[in-house]
Amino acid sequence: MSDKVRPLARRMSAIEPFHVMELLARAKALEAQGRSIVHMEIGEPDFPTPRPICEAGMRALDKGDLYYTAALGLPELRAGIARYYRTRYGVDVDAGRIVITSGSSAALLLALGVLVDPDSEVLLCDPGYPANRHFVRMLNGVPVNVPVGPDSRYQMTPELLEHYWSERTVAALVATPSNPTGTVIPPGHIERMAAHAADKGGVLLVDEIYHGLVYDGPTTTALEASDEVFVINSFSKYFNMTGWRLGWMVAPEAYVRELDKLAQNVYLSAPAPAQYAALAAFEPETIAILDSRRDEFRARRDYLVPALRKLGFDVQTPQGAFYIYADCSKLTNDSYRFALDLLEHAGVAITPGLDFGTHRASEHVRFAYTSSIERLEEGVSRIGEFLRLRG
Amino acid sequence: MSDKVRPLARRMSAIEPFHVMELLARAKALEAQGRSIVHMEIGEPDFPTPRPICEAGMRALDKGDLYYTAALGLPELRAGIARYYRTRYGVDVDAGRIVITSGSSAALLLALGVLVDPDSEVLLCDPGYPANRHFVRMLNGVPVNVPVGPDSRYQMTPELLEHYWSERTVAALVATPSNPTGTVIPPGHIERMAAHAADKGGVLLVDEIYHGLVYDGPTTTALEASDEVFVINSFSKYFNMTGWRLGWMVAPEAYVRELDKLAQNVYLSAPAPAQYAALAAFEPETIAILDSRRDEFRARRDYLVPALRKLGFDVQTPQGAFYIYADCSKLTNDSYRFALDLLEHAGVAITPGLDFGTHRASEHVRFAYTSSIERLEEGVSRIGEFLRLRG
Repeated sequence: MSDKVRPLARRMSAIEPFHVMELLARAKALEAQGRSIVHMEIGEPDFPTPRPICEAGMRALDKGDLYYTAALGLPELRAGIARYYRTRYGVDVDAGRIVITSGSSAALLLALGVLVDPDSEVLLCDPGYPANRHFVRMLNGVPVNVPVGPDSRYQMTPELLEHYWSERTVAALVATPSNPTGTVIPPGHIERMAAHAADKGGVLLVDEIYHGLVYDGPTTTALEASDEVFVINSFSKYFNMTGWRLGWMVAPEAYVRELDKLAQNVYLSAPAPAQYAALAAFEPETIAILDSRRDEFRARRDYLVPALRKLGFDVQTPQGAFYIYADCSKLTNDSYRFALDLLEHAGVAITPGLDFGTHRASEHVRFAYTSSIERLEEGVSRIGEFLRLRG
Repeated sequence: MSDKVRPLARRMSAIEPFHVMELLARAKALEAQGRSIVHMEIGEPDFPTPRPICEAGMRALDKGDLYYTAALGLPELRAGIARYYRTRYGVDVDAGRIVITSGSSAALLLALGVLVDPDSEVLLCDPGYPANRHFVRMLNGVPVNVPVGPDSRYQMTPELLEHYWSERTVAALVATPSNPTGTVIPPGHIERMAAHAADKGGVLLVDEIYHGLVYDGPTTTALEASDEVFVINSFSKYFNMTGWRLGWMVAPEAYVRELDKLAQNVYLSAPAPAQYAALAAFEPETIAILDSRRDEFRARRDYLVPALRKLGFDVQTPQGAFYIYADCSKLTNDSYRFALDLLEHAGVAITPGLDFGTHRASEHVRFAYTSSIERLEEGVSRIGEFLRLRG
């Protein structure tokens, strides 16, 4: 901001740009100079949107009738998601509880919008997806960072939730699988955390936007544990629809009317092209494409975890998403500097822990396996060379 | 909400659903029974998205690469908008000040998000677009309703702005052409209001989402008056892209970095399909389609204004948008009841004043001319018959 007096909301001083953006800008500058960069920082699938989804979208665009939809979303899409919960998870979810949103970002802002007053506290994992803290700040609530580490697989536990829950707490937000850690919360923990929140007059929000991208164990959803949790989901990750900006939320019945009111005002509707396209997301043909891509992600994980361990990173095997949150404390005590050096000298882009919180952030980096195994191998080889040269 | 204790943010008690939704639901129910309804309540163009825009979107979908874009938007779209300001308005706008958003809704939330602290005041016209008040409430600010009437053509004036500006005011939001009134603010007033806001350490936000839909007088933008205003715009109305959810904002240079930070966190990016499609929005072929539709809107206005006067409504000729805000006090002292009765007994749907504020709301209704002239004629004839029968 220049010297002139201009209004600036106080929240802005607490909202930081993603540090990885600075790295991305540098990576692009290097690429513009002709340098080859291995990208292990990018938080979106490297796969294009599956063809059947694009074709459904093209049919809608060909008709041209792309008007506002209902604020809660196309009824047929809400019904399709309800069917998906039945076939994929064996859970009955009333379509009336499903809210279609402009990405999971909108789902989070709507859910927190009906819950958070100024100074309300919301519990969040540190490390965790950084925007979540800023949604709370947007609403003038107080994000309370709950430090999590390898002992709880970098996840919230019922004990931590109870410990950090205060009289001002209205909600806890957990993510399973988590970004940046890729780890999953056991269903029993979800149940206990939801019960504790309800006992205290609060609610549990469960971010399941990486669902479908789980490589070990059964596929579960928090909706099996409770009808009183907010489940946030997305077409971005498993369905490879990041740029379309489409997500959904399953809300407790009692909140649907409030969410509808807020969505009418703040969003009007989720993007119609994406909603029409997503009608093809649950077709067997699409799911077959997506599940083979999931298997590819699993293969990348299975390659990368032991490869990183061999390089000296301390890694717990993540069950899902496409991230590895690696403890790099044996290699550096400044993971941000480490990431910058790695980019500059080895041409490998990764995300410093600082983007996900402050708890032991300088001892962690996030690797995204959103590149082909060949590129991951190249990245690992470059990191190895970088570490050897550094001595 | 049920009896169980659940958290609910205080703002929700001040956020009402649009009353027209109740009317819309009733209209649909009547149509399902086989009744014919003339729709004069709908706030979006009845024209489909122009073919060249749909085709550009289809080409993007055919490629399938629909990843996140930069938070500020596709550089080529930002450049295209800058060119449009030059060719259409003769104004030089740096593309770096243009922020692509998920509809003008997102532009408003971002702009207010960087400006509004809890208890900050924002001046708004009453009547005005109701969501604007709720964006302020979302951020725990205080929307201050400035009552406006026929003496100022239902618009904010420099005198009103000065009168209502307090020490807690950070911004005033005006709309030109306005929803629901269709009236335009003279450029000289924009300049004086922007200067007054700046003098007081605040800013002026100008909603220009109906720009392009102006039927009398020269085409102007607030950007001619000042580089220090926030201009909110949209592809929804003139460009007939409502359901795509795409808008933009031109921000004062000093705020761009703050807006980028907030957009990264709260939206990630505007929808990619819409952004690629909108690259065709400024093509001469598209503009020719849109300008002929604008002429059709003008013809509808020119039919409807005198027709409503003949029926007993008190109407100032609006210069733009596709609304007529009619004083119905000679016909009823309860415009909400009047709208319900008109729907029930005459099969004509209009929007009660209550949806736009409280100032003399019961003496006003909004007519939208988003139906063909034939349908508008049918609507006028039914209203005439309804009034005659009522005696």
